[in-house]
Amino acid sequence: MKTYLECFPCFLNQALRAGRIATDDERKIKRILDEVGMMLKDIPFETTPPESGMLIYRKVSEITGNLDPYKEIKEESTEKCLSLYPSLKNLVEKSNDKLLTAIRIAIAGNVIDFGAKREFDIEEEIEAAFTRDFAVCDYVEFKDRLDGADEILYIGDNAGECVFDRILIETMKKPVIYVVRGVPVINDATYEDAVQAGIDKVATILSSGTDAPGTILNTCSEEFKKIYKSAEFIISKGQGNYEALSNEKRPIFFLLKVKCHVIANDMGLTEGDIVLQSITKW
Amino acid sequence: MKTYLECFPCFLNQALRAGRIATDDERKIKRILDEVGMMLKDIPFETTPPESGMLIYRKVSEITGNLDPYKEIKEESTEKCLSLYPSLKNLVEKSNDKLLTAIRIAIAGNVIDFGAKREFDIEEEIEAAFTRDFAVCDYVEFKDRLDGADEILYIGDNAGECVFDRILIETMKKPVIYVVRGVPVINDATYEDAVQAGIDKVATILSSGTDAPGTILNTCSEEFKKIYKSAEFIISKGQGNYEALSNEKRPIFFLLKVKCHVIANDMGLTEGDIVLQSITKW
Repeated sequence: MKTYLECFPCFLNQALRAGRIATDDERKIKRILDEVGMMLKDIPFETTPPESGMLIYRKVSEITGNLDPYKEIKEESTEKCLSLYPSLKNLVEKSNDKLLTAIRIAIAGNVIDFGAKREFDIEEEIEAAFTRDFAVCDYVEFKDRLDGADEILYIGDNAGECVFDRILIETMKKPVIYVVRGVPVINDATYEDAVQAGIDKVATILSSGTDAPGTILNTCSEEFKKIYKSAEFIISKGQGNYEALSNEKRPIFFLLKVKCHVIANDMGLTEGDIVLQSITKW
Repeated sequence: MKTYLECFPCFLNQALRAGRIATDDERKIKRILDEVGMMLKDIPFETTPPESGMLIYRKVSEITGNLDPYKEIKEESTEKCLSLYPSLKNLVEKSNDKLLTAIRIAIAGNVIDFGAKREFDIEEEIEAAFTRDFAVCDYVEFKDRLDGADEILYIGDNAGECVFDRILIETMKKPVIYVVRGVPVINDATYEDAVQAGIDKVATILSSGTDAPGTILNTCSEEFKKIYKSAEFIISKGQGNYEALSNEKRPIFFLLKVKCHVIANDMGLTEGDIVLQSITKW
């Protein structure tokens, strides 16, 4: 996805939010805003928003000296989600269409996003993910691809959300490579977060190598890119990965909740929509 | 009022909103955002937000060549408000406390603010201004001051809103000097807007000389400053004037609707509150 005009004030808002999490020192936060302000002129429309996000969150770490401001928040998110795991598993077990139920759960987990919004209620979101119709639901195609796939490349998004992804992975009953960020950025899942969520018990965890809040391929490791390029079935969770990969020509299914009006416009959807969308370009 | 951290992303948002009104050329809007981004580092906490607003809206005019992007919007606002004038006058006439009713009407008009928010429903706001309790209501003090005053200095805020101010002016039955901005900035009222609203029939219109979206004294004319310094009773409408004058030691009453959470925090109030607040420092 390209960068839209609306993204520029949002970059400042993200810098402010992350700055406040990383430090109480208002002068340091002001320096972050000053420096992010000066960056804007070097961000062309043609870049994807997570590429700029990467530079912004690097700046937050550099100025505050805090390399993982969301560490505690992430751990708490995962704890919270783990406590919901048994009842969600039960929901899947009881349902007529276990796979679709697990997909809905995985999308509900996508609300745990401190980049787009700071406040959310995970229980409320689960409720919503079950009562709301999909705005896009390429489910038949998803099932076909899944049936024919020997392995799934599952690109994760946020910590906590991993627990919900685990339920989908368990339900798909196929070998999965679960992709996490290379280093902490916002509350995006890293290796440690995936392990805390128990993903290591159900999938092979692979770092993409990036420190961007989205899978920006040219910032990813060679190892990841090789696996990505040969993958026959890719699940991409969340907005950051959508922004980074929406112009790709690979067999990707985007699973996400639309949390910002710019992405909503880009996808031809409405804020709040839940989506299981197949890329049509491969 | 000082500039808070939250003001910095808001400056970008304001630049984007104004840019979109001033031009359809996305590259020009991008240039505005780039330049406002670069300005941030030169804005210390100690300045008031309208001082920066002034620089931002100047930049919008400079880059787009559009010196009065809100001209049509302002004219339409005034037309709309004029159409409501007879029924609002009737409301005042029928009420038990004509002055308080006119104050409520003047506050309702303060919602016509394209700087803080873009969407509002003026009829809904009038309804709200009559059903909502004042969060602060220094009405007794206001009446006392009014009784003793020979002349009122009434600092206006937005075009359209002038029509509602006119009703308060007519109700106060005292000589009024009505202050407008020196040149167009956002949808703030200028001389022409005040005349369109019929203020010239009920008050002496005076330009403050400023092009800031608030009465930043060091940008005002000597004539205005002289009158301001000797005024015995000052009514200041809206957020921009509050931000500019909140640290003054003059007999000012702020009449406004709180439309942003930063100002709400500064005043110890909540967004949406309506206020008739006497400055306590003179």
